[in-house]
Amino acid sequence: MLDIAIIGGGPAGLSAAINGVIRNKKVKIFGNDITTSYLYKAEKIDNYIGMMGATGQEMMESFLGHAKEMNVEIENKKVLEIFNMGDFYMLNAENEFIEAKTVILANGITKASSVEGEEAFLGRGVSYCATCDGPLYRGKTVALIGDSAHAEEDVNYLNEVCEKVYYIPLYKNVGSLGERVEVVSGKPKAVEGEGVVNKLVLKDGELDVSGVFIIKESIPTTQLLKGLEIDEKAIKVNRFMETNMPGVYAAGDCTGRPYQVAKAVGEGATAALQAVSYLHTKDKVSK
Amino acid sequence: MLDIAIIGGGPAGLSAAINGVIRNKKVKIFGNDITTSYLYKAEKIDNYIGMMGATGQEMMESFLGHAKEMNVEIENKKVLEIFNMGDFYMLNAENEFIEAKTVILANGITKASSVEGEEAFLGRGVSYCATCDGPLYRGKTVALIGDSAHAEEDVNYLNEVCEKVYYIPLYKNVGSLGERVEVVSGKPKAVEGEGVVNKLVLKDGELDVSGVFIIKESIPTTQLLKGLEIDEKAIKVNRFMETNMPGVYAAGDCTGRPYQVAKAVGEGATAALQAVSYLHTKDKVSK
Repeated sequence: MLDIAIIGGGPAGLSAAINGVIRNKKVKIFGNDITTSYLYKAEKIDNYIGMMGATGQEMMESFLGHAKEMNVEIENKKVLEIFNMGDFYMLNAENEFIEAKTVILANGITKASSVEGEEAFLGRGVSYCATCDGPLYRGKTVALIGDSAHAEEDVNYLNEVCEKVYYIPLYKNVGSLGERVEVVSGKPKAVEGEGVVNKLVLKDGELDVSGVFIIKESIPTTQLLKGLEIDEKAIKVNRFMETNMPGVYAAGDCTGRPYQVAKAVGEGATAALQAVSYLHTKDKVSK
Repeated sequence: MLDIAIIGGGPAGLSAAINGVIRNKKVKIFGNDITTSYLYKAEKIDNYIGMMGATGQEMMESFLGHAKEMNVEIENKKVLEIFNMGDFYMLNAENEFIEAKTVILANGITKASSVEGEEAFLGRGVSYCATCDGPLYRGKTVALIGDSAHAEEDVNYLNEVCEKVYYIPLYKNVGSLGERVEVVSGKPKAVEGEGVVNKLVLKDGELDVSGVFIIKESIPTTQLLKGLEIDEKAIKVNRFMETNMPGVYAAGDCTGRPYQVAKAVGEGATAALQAVSYLHTKDKVSK
């Protein structure tokens, strides 16, 4: 079982990880490739003290290098849901199930807005993971909404199992896709159905589908962990980065403004040290 | 008038300063030389992400270099007291008076414990500044308690104006001192007097003096700014580093645990950005 599972490999997640490892805890980051982070694309960052004038790429590579040097494990899988098991947490990382004593949420901000009905139909035709739920739609027609080119892998996977795949990319310059894929432009408006999904409504027109896959860089936090307290779209935390759930901490952009590297790094460190202290208290109690 | 006065030139103060300057604010740090900071003496710091394995000296020099590169002004004076003037704040920096619209307290933790009677006799025989109050004791006998070799400058200044100076160093390896100085060992216990100071009580014995100078690396925060809310020895702040006083923020070790560079840097950045936002709101109101 992991001591600390960290969701997100940006500045907050990496900072949390090195602080956990330095205290001899078993830590793992679940995160996207660093090239997907906003920071990576930043031209120049002058306000993270000690690294004046670094480009986003330089900074992220330096952060990642530091973490790797300290043997931080990073798994390039998306965590779809976290279950509260009472005494520990269970993570579903693309259908691999992982146990962790504590969780640090460092999953940034979700830029993609929700589609009407997305939440209501989740698990009843709406899915965040093609690899996990694709097989349920064998021989059927589905739609996939993707907010970045990373979603194309999912589209091509569905191309192999489904009868037809409508692909609605929310970005430009779509790559090469399988023959059963039809690219559809137009903003998604709503998922509709009766009990289960049967329709995706677009700004102009609608598509008859059995399933709608929504592939975002990050899962909305409210979906990720049920019962987590949110305050104005940010995860509610106190000065020790504790959330309302025992053993669950949050750090970085997901806790709200200011959206700054320095804040994320500081909060990551604090969250990890607080998790360590929680682990020690629990160990004492259970002995 | 300064936009932002920052008390303390450690990681929190320097991080606050670069974030204020980057938003085009008139910023000044009041702080000791970096060699006096705890961090400077640290052998190796592995948990500030991006600077793995730096020594404390390397880290502080890198932070200071970054701040200087961005034209942050640093004044090597000790701020003795901050007065709330209603619409702005007035700082007494060794008897130079400076106005500032906002203040960021980043003055670390005071290691020196207080002497009994210190607070009660402050301004009535107890002083934190030899340069400021020395002339009041011309021809008299005084005692000076110093917590580091930096206090020796003050001792030698008093040697020039006073009849006799008892020096109680709280550290080892005392340097060369003036001829009217007598070094006394023994822990200071209490300042006593009737209305004004007339005695310094030590663990073994007592000294008849007209004044007691207490020269610490940092002034106790409760003395620095009257009315500031303190919670378990730390300055009480919310998630935006706001204190209970409008336009006053705090960052770093002075806000409590964990005492970590990353936390200090993050809080410094947040405090500065919050101060900037406060300045903008005030500007709008006054127009």
